[in-house]
Amino acid sequence: MNSEELARQLRVRVDQALERWLPPARTCPERLHTAIRYAVMGGGKRLRPLLAYASAAWLGLPPERVDAIAVALEIVHAYSLVHDDLPALDDDPLRRGRPSTHVAFGEAIAILVGDALQAHAYLVLATDSTLNASPVARCQLVRDLATASGSSGMAGGQAMDMEAAGRPVDAAQAEFICGLKTGRLLEAAILMPCRLRPGIEPQWLEAAQRFGRAYGLAFQLADDLRDMDAPAEVSGKAPGGDQRQGKATLLSLLGPQATRARVRTLQLEARDALASWGPEADLLRWLCATTLG
Amino acid sequence: MNSEELARQLRVRVDQALERWLPPARTCPERLHTAIRYAVMGGGKRLRPLLAYASAAWLGLPPERVDAIAVALEIVHAYSLVHDDLPALDDDPLRRGRPSTHVAFGEAIAILVGDALQAHAYLVLATDSTLNASPVARCQLVRDLATASGSSGMAGGQAMDMEAAGRPVDAAQAEFICGLKTGRLLEAAILMPCRLRPGIEPQWLEAAQRFGRAYGLAFQLADDLRDMDAPAEVSGKAPGGDQRQGKATLLSLLGPQATRARVRTLQLEARDALASWGPEADLLRWLCATTLG
Repeated sequence: MNSEELARQLRVRVDQALERWLPPARTCPERLHTAIRYAVMGGGKRLRPLLAYASAAWLGLPPERVDAIAVALEIVHAYSLVHDDLPALDDDPLRRGRPSTHVAFGEAIAILVGDALQAHAYLVLATDSTLNASPVARCQLVRDLATASGSSGMAGGQAMDMEAAGRPVDAAQAEFICGLKTGRLLEAAILMPCRLRPGIEPQWLEAAQRFGRAYGLAFQLADDLRDMDAPAEVSGKAPGGDQRQGKATLLSLLGPQATRARVRTLQLEARDALASWGPEADLLRWLCATTLG
Repeated sequence: MNSEELARQLRVRVDQALERWLPPARTCPERLHTAIRYAVMGGGKRLRPLLAYASAAWLGLPPERVDAIAVALEIVHAYSLVHDDLPALDDDPLRRGRPSTHVAFGEAIAILVGDALQAHAYLVLATDSTLNASPVARCQLVRDLATASGSSGMAGGQAMDMEAAGRPVDAAQAEFICGLKTGRLLEAAILMPCRLRPGIEPQWLEAAQRFGRAYGLAFQLADDLRDMDAPAEVSGKAPGGDQRQGKATLLSLLGPQATRARVRTLQLEARDALASWGPEADLLRWLCATTLG
């Protein structure tokens, strides 16, 4: 099976796992659960789950072992989008071509959707039996997710991003912010499946970290390039949001040409991290080749 | 030592543990970390930590074993206050006699403070070594906290509370909402220390649950009674918030007299749950006697 077909199947797979793991819309509190499903099940690239499945393939683990990791990562990503779209943050009325959660359900529910989703991600990691992980590994997964999404990861990056708006920031700072805001969770998607192989040799962890770090940063830069002038009907978001808010992205500092060059360098770095591996790393390589365009 | 003095010492103890466990204000991102400390370290009754320490005393565990549980509970409570105070939710400009976090730091930072704090609570549970818990127990603690604070607990209760505003709700529904919104986390404070005694006999867990359920509900009702007409300089909050928003609390449905009677009944129920125990349960009894007044 080629990587494109495999990725398509894995997207279906994670959607089915999310379907199983999210609270049913008909259970109380119904409006919150309906909004939770709206926020999570509304499409999206499912990039973090795909990275987790690709990492599992590289490690020789079957996909069912990482369903819970894929679900937890996507749930955390979804909560962050719901909160980032709020008027007080990025004020984005559109997400994935539909009204953002706060537009569809009101701000109060949107805040609570994010809060409940975050708790749910940890519940999944601590509970899911298909993960077939030792309690030690589960604790490490909780640590990985909390570190990647907390004040020294995603939430911290978003806070620095808000502060940097309208202020002078240099390229190193912009890259640092970008690494926290998006990079850490993408890195975690590669690293977390490694926890399911107890006694894994250090070169795997190093490769996972090198690949994850380079890919994570490259992805955010490539995403900024795509957003720059994509019309809403293509991106599913209101166009030029970062420029509108005067955010100092690496793109606004370096310009499109130098940003594209930086993406290429990082892409080579990510590929290089996997140089010692064979076809088992092909899905990771394919993601690296197709999602940074 | 009498219970009052012990409670005073335990409040100092949890503040020191929070001090150790929160990210230093001087580490990047500084503004977020400063706001996190503002939200958590600004006083408060520390009721959930006290309940956890009281439960530990009842179980014969030294306080140092439950520092991490006390910290995680207080962090989750603090995040929920920051989000509840936001304009889109309860719109409270005052908290503990000071400007609420969103008033002091802006709404964007306040949302991110809550998000980062939630992740931090799980990091503490998964990492802290003084907890001296088996990985199995840690996973159970993560499950307990996620269940108590997610869509079938605190966040779910808050969502139902928002929905119920201005709509007809009966006393059973109002009590159910109240149990989710406040009760579940108070129950968790009693239950979580039980996870540190592997193979604990069922009568302990049953007593913890009975006490926690009755006490948790009684506390919210007593809190509503206190808030009813307390001036801001006493409560540290803007007065009559629930009435202002047309929220159907049990108090507004039953009136103060019947609500007070309900608190007394629940208080007796909580005390009764501990009837088979001796002085080791005195701190729990004392909390039950002094915090429901």
